[in-house]
Amino acid sequence: MKKTLNIGLIGYGFMGRTHSNAYRKVSNFFDVPYKPVLKTVCGLDEAQARAFADQWGYESYCTDWRQVIADDTIDVVDICVPNNMHAEIAIAAAQAGKAICCEKPLALNVAEAERMVAAVEKAGVANLVSFNYRRVPAVTLAKQLIDEGRLGRIFHYRANFLQDWTISKDVPQGGMATWRLDAKAAGSGVTGDLLAHCIDTAMWHNGAITSVSAMTETFIKERKNAETGKVEPVGIDDACTFMCRFDNGSLGNFESTRYARGHKALYTFEINGENASIAWDLHDLHRLSYFDHADDSIVRGWRNVHVTDGDMPYMGKWWVPGLQIGYEHSFVHQVADFLEDMAQGKPTSPTFREALATQRVCEAVLTSAKSKSWQTIKQP
Amino acid sequence: MKKTLNIGLIGYGFMGRTHSNAYRKVSNFFDVPYKPVLKTVCGLDEAQARAFADQWGYESYCTDWRQVIADDTIDVVDICVPNNMHAEIAIAAAQAGKAICCEKPLALNVAEAERMVAAVEKAGVANLVSFNYRRVPAVTLAKQLIDEGRLGRIFHYRANFLQDWTISKDVPQGGMATWRLDAKAAGSGVTGDLLAHCIDTAMWHNGAITSVSAMTETFIKERKNAETGKVEPVGIDDACTFMCRFDNGSLGNFESTRYARGHKALYTFEINGENASIAWDLHDLHRLSYFDHADDSIVRGWRNVHVTDGDMPYMGKWWVPGLQIGYEHSFVHQVADFLEDMAQGKPTSPTFREALATQRVCEAVLTSAKSKSWQTIKQP
Amino acid sequence: MKKTLNIGLIGYGFMGRTHSNAYRKVSNFFDVPYKPVLKTVCGLDEAQARAFADQWGYESYCTDWRQVIADDTIDVVDICVPNNMHAEIAIAAAQAGKAICCEKPLALNVAEAERMVAAVEKAGVANLVSFNYRRVPAVTLAKQLIDEGRLGRIFHYRANFLQDWTISKDVPQGGMATWRLDAKAAGSGVTGDLLAHCIDTAMWHNGAITSVSAMTETFIKERKNAETGKVEPVGIDDACTFMCRFDNGSLGNFESTRYARGHKALYTFEINGENASIAWDLHDLHRLSYFDHADDSIVRGWRNVHVTDGDMPYMGKWWVPGLQIGYEHSFVHQVADFLEDMAQGKPTSPTFREALATQRVCEAVLTSAKSKSWQTIKQP
Amino acid sequence: MKKTLNIGLIGYGFMGRTHSNAYRKVSNFFDVPYKPVLKTVCGLDEAQARAFADQWGYESYCTDWRQVIADDTIDVVDICVPNNMHAEIAIAAAQAGKAICCEKPLALNVAEAERMVAAVEKAGVANLVSFNYRRVPAVTLAKQLIDEGRLGRIFHYRANFLQDWTISKDVPQGGMATWRLDAKAAGSGVTGDLLAHCIDTAMWHNGAITSVSAMTETFIKERKNAETGKVEPVGIDDACTFMCRFDNGSLGNFESTRYARGHKALYTFEINGENASIAWDLHDLHRLSYFDHADDSIVRGWRNVHVTDGDMPYMGKWWVPGLQIGYEHSFVHQVADFLEDMAQGKPTSPTFREALATQRVCEAVLTSAKSKSWQTIKQP
Repeated sequence: MKKTLNIGLIGYGFMGRTHSNAYRKVSNFFDVPYKPVLKTVCGLDEAQARAFADQWGYESYCTDWRQVIADDTIDVVDICVPNNMHAEIAIAAAQAGKAICCEKPLALNVAEAERMVAAVEKAGVANLVSFNYRRVPAVTLAKQLIDEGRLGRIFHYRANFLQDWTISKDVPQGGMATWRLDAKAAGSGVTGDLLAHCIDTAMWHNGAITSVSAMTETFIKERKNAETGKVEPVGIDDACTFMCRFDNGSLGNFESTRYARGHKALYTFEINGENASIAWDLHDLHRLSYFDHADDSIVRGWRNVHVTDGDMPYMGKWWVPGLQIGYEHSFVHQVADFLEDMAQGKPTSPTFREALATQRVCEAVLTSAKSKSWQTIKQP
Repeated sequence: MKKTLNIGLIGYGFMGRTHSNAYRKVSNFFDVPYKPVLKTVCGLDEAQARAFADQWGYESYCTDWRQVIADDTIDVVDICVPNNMHAEIAIAAAQAGKAICCEKPLALNVAEAERMVAAVEKAGVANLVSFNYRRVPAVTLAKQLIDEGRLGRIFHYRANFLQDWTISKDVPQGGMATWRLDAKAAGSGVTGDLLAHCIDTAMWHNGAITSVSAMTETFIKERKNAETGKVEPVGIDDACTFMCRFDNGSLGNFESTRYARGHKALYTFEINGENASIAWDLHDLHRLSYFDHADDSIVRGWRNVHVTDGDMPYMGKWWVPGLQIGYEHSFVHQVADFLEDMAQGKPTSPTFREALATQRVCEAVLTSAKSKSWQTIKQP
Repeated sequence: MKKTLNIGLIGYGFMGRTHSNAYRKVSNFFDVPYKPVLKTVCGLDEAQARAFADQWGYESYCTDWRQVIADDTIDVVDICVPNNMHAEIAIAAAQAGKAICCEKPLALNVAEAERMVAAVEKAGVANLVSFNYRRVPAVTLAKQLIDEGRLGRIFHYRANFLQDWTISKDVPQGGMATWRLDAKAAGSGVTGDLLAHCIDTAMWHNGAITSVSAMTETFIKERKNAETGKVEPVGIDDACTFMCRFDNGSLGNFESTRYARGHKALYTFEINGENASIAWDLHDLHRLSYFDHADDSIVRGWRNVHVTDGDMPYMGKWWVPGLQIGYEHSFVHQVADFLEDMAQGKPTSPTFREALATQRVCEAVLTSAKSKSWQTIKQP
Repeated sequence: MKKTLNIGLIGYGFMGRTHSNAYRKVSNFFDVPYKPVLKTVCGLDEAQARAFADQWGYESYCTDWRQVIADDTIDVVDICVPNNMHAEIAIAAAQAGKAICCEKPLALNVAEAERMVAAVEKAGVANLVSFNYRRVPAVTLAKQLIDEGRLGRIFHYRANFLQDWTISKDVPQGGMATWRLDAKAAGSGVTGDLLAHCIDTAMWHNGAITSVSAMTETFIKERKNAETGKVEPVGIDDACTFMCRFDNGSLGNFESTRYARGHKALYTFEINGENASIAWDLHDLHRLSYFDHADDSIVRGWRNVHVTDGDMPYMGKWWVPGLQIGYEHSFVHQVADFLEDMAQGKPTSPTFREALATQRVCEAVLTSAKSKSWQTIKQP
């Protein structure tokens, strides 16, 4: 009989659903060392928490997150609340000796993130930040190809995360559905929400970012508050572009916006190496583009790889070649790795410490945009 | 409290997994009138049946399908065994008053299929054949666009189902993994396995097929038997192409093969109407191509629709725009509709009777190929 | 100084323009052994013939094609008139000892085509039929890849030629612009106009077609005559689908229509071999899709080859890698090869005799559709 | 009879060929007010100049560009030499009262460019800089769509120009074939060669660029001189990325490199407006991507427009819908417009003055990269 692992989920929004689904599904597909049990879900609104518990099969629900921390039966605290609450909850959970899975970005700022890292490292608890896109099989495959040395020296890393859902000035800020537009809850706009993903993947693929020059813009200057109905200034960045240099000498170009009409959630990256290049986009996440200069010149071209075969990362666990998986599966993979590493006492990447490095880049980006100057990032 | 619905699954292969996943997941995403309970799984090998039950959370397992039929607590019998066993099991299940979900193709031939239809209709039990591709949201959307009259008069329906997994002569026939290559178990090759899907979708989209002219080929004439190791003649069609006429005057062109190097499971269709056209392919199942002649001529072109928005079929239940679902979700939708219809006492399409119509076309196709003549199909 | 070669063009329509452009341009890019001189153009309407001569720099014009044949200074007779006039002009030109470039399809029917072949072979004159798509670099590259044996045993050849320009019932038949809809002038509809191209390329790539089963349809049964204004029955095939077998054991699937909403001139082919596959489409004629099963499995996928490099067929003569050529260039290549072969006394493919083989397939296709039976094609 | 216009071409390299082709071809397709006559070609090497004249039908050739300027019969001086010679030749040509077509970028720097503008404006001669990509029909169509207001407020302009031809350290610098790698001849690397195109198109589409922050890199620090064989430091930028702000409040993101493995000449742009977006790439230059938010939500998607219809810019002059043109045609359109405007006494865009604005942005980009600071651009 497998050991069970009791999950306490804090936050029942969009991410609460993706994490719940992952815990429920992982054992059906992966041979994981623990059996996750959906023990309790916590959220501000009791009726909603109850409904969520019912829908997902949580054994109980509550409305005070401290109750989850205090519950001795809980093994893993999973944090899916707005960014401004990550630090407090995570630190408390660490002090209580819980393993922690925290949604990204790790924190509102570097100072908070540093305290969180200190807390989990002091407590010696398993800790993971949910930069889920690393575990889209095509993205993981990209990492594998780089690590195998297939690209050779890397010259360029380019990433975009383009959306269009806030173009209308009638979209409010704040509240349950639109807290991502509220600077107090979110800390920043696209930089923390979207570029953080790009930066996490980029540094995983291509090493540290050492300096940045950024530009941000808030296109719609004021919006109605979803809760109060009052029109208030918008504090977040609607769009952010930055150039950077990586430690390995390659150049980076990153852009994110919620004003790119026609793109719903188009996260793309492209890596150009001396011998080969790789490209990917989230709108067709089951594909990877690969160009190999070593191919015969008359039949050389970008290869469109349908990442659905059993010898590709994670794909041996799903269906048969040609049958694609989707967005939610990246969270299943994340949980599978988290459980496996936990059993072996190994850290699961990205840890809080790794996410702190991403936080440093995000903060440098925002500082650069404000100061209109290049910023150097020192990763200690 | 929702009423439970006890599921008895017969067959723990690839399809057994897709169906189990669907029953487990449906309540988390859809507001279904019943709560499916994974009651028992049945398969030939006891160890495998036990392992499957364990992996998926079935309460029990057995090795004799008659036991499932005899079990009074079972509400739904789900048939995921090779084609040659569909008839016997389904007829017994009908006689026992069970609701039935049967994998496609319905039967080995029209005669069997007719007996199955008679059985379920006599028993008055809910019955459904798992032509799951109808419930890929993009495919359902195509149906909706046709029903809205957006295409106008339809001239052409084109469908292909291309694979490449049997090109090597070392692939055996028969046995658990390759029964689809064994004429005795499968009845036919690509015609029943792949073209049946294309035909089901086509007749749903475009009405009855009235005549066909077909050509089949078996490229590899003999293969080793996976169980006996003996080299035996191959009895199935490796490839099948057919032309047809639809009742509405449009022309059809269908092709399937397992010898199309480079295609894993490329099911495609394209429908050309007077005013608009639609195209889809399974390798990017979350997209639909749409061409509308009414667009301004200077900006007229095929639209690449990312079928991930909440107002598209089934998609309001999943994530947010831009985040794709995958293959397995079509089965979840199938179960959601099955449960909903069952509660309302309505048939769920495609019923056994509708699948019989597809069986008639398949049989006419095989007869045409053998006789090298056009065959007329009479749907009574 | 290069020897000049005097061109007499008969027909100043769309094809007259493509051929004139080719003769004018070829020397600027290719090191051809002759310098083509645009000597005379002939067409029914004097004012239009004069305007055409002026626009393209022909030294003279006339309205009676016999005058071109009778002109001793003319070296090459280029036939760009409707199909029903090919035979008479070509036979006269052959008898007058002229080299001949004739537009496709060669003739109205096999009987005519046989007389034409006899005439040019008896006269020993250079003869070429303008199946220009063979000389789109990507199509030529496909031939090279097949000849190099990269595909191995071929299983499938699939070709479509889809248009949508005759969907409106207001398009007339007959006259200068729409003679292709007039059975008397064109001989057939899509079969001779479009499928002839597909068949020519297919037999060049994949060898002889030995049997066919076809289906044709005329969706709009009557149209106004462009010249008389009278509404008359439509005699051509609006759409034609056929299946076939090749001499090498592979299966063919061909379809053409002018009722495929959304496709302007979408000629596509795909060839599936044991080891590799190739696909191409005219709407992006500068690209070739190539799949090589020998690639490492984790980076295997269709390669999108941008056919613009100097080591690809014909491309060393144009610009630099990345810069595409277009439709008209296929005619320039055709002329370049024609002149080169002429200087060496070699036939240029496809000769009249090769085009006769295509004519036989076209005729078998039309017979099959009429008789609803398989037709065997004997190439003597 | 049309008036003739005598062309004197200076420089017989790659651009000399594209311009010669354009002059030769324009009258066959466009109803231009002048008949261009290829009068003389000038280049350093006499044998090559003679061969070029022969190939293209120039009446004469010479090796001293001053001879072209001094020739009273020459109406248009066409400058296709390396950038460091543009200013001297253009100023002399202006003083001699010649119409001038000059290759891009206009000059080595802003100071030179200003003197050139002063010269042509003082002389009152027709002047045009060959930013040919404006006249790719899809790019021109993009301009038309913007001018029609279809995009609404513009938020983002993104452009890349990616190549990979200098990745090998064995590519030399300097000489006839590789002067673009020689800072003395070219002035800069990708900034002047490639980004100048992007900037020209961007400001045409989206108005003035007002500030920039840039980053450049030289990946290969020294290369052999193609003429002397000596290894020398590389003075050009191999790659350049810049962010910018446009006068209309939109954000720009530009990148160019010759180290993007897998891209031959991939010039792309994307424009995101409030109501619609547009994207284009040079590798499929005959297509335009268009997204219109006003489309019904269930069939909304990027439209892939095949820019080959008669009602699209320039396309009424070429073939029929579905048949693409290529790279070289942009130069034909440029000449067609130049001749038409000349006859009407109107300037042809981009004039020297407009190209000076582009030069200012290029210079600011290079200054920004050097100083690691934002630069403001003042267009007087």
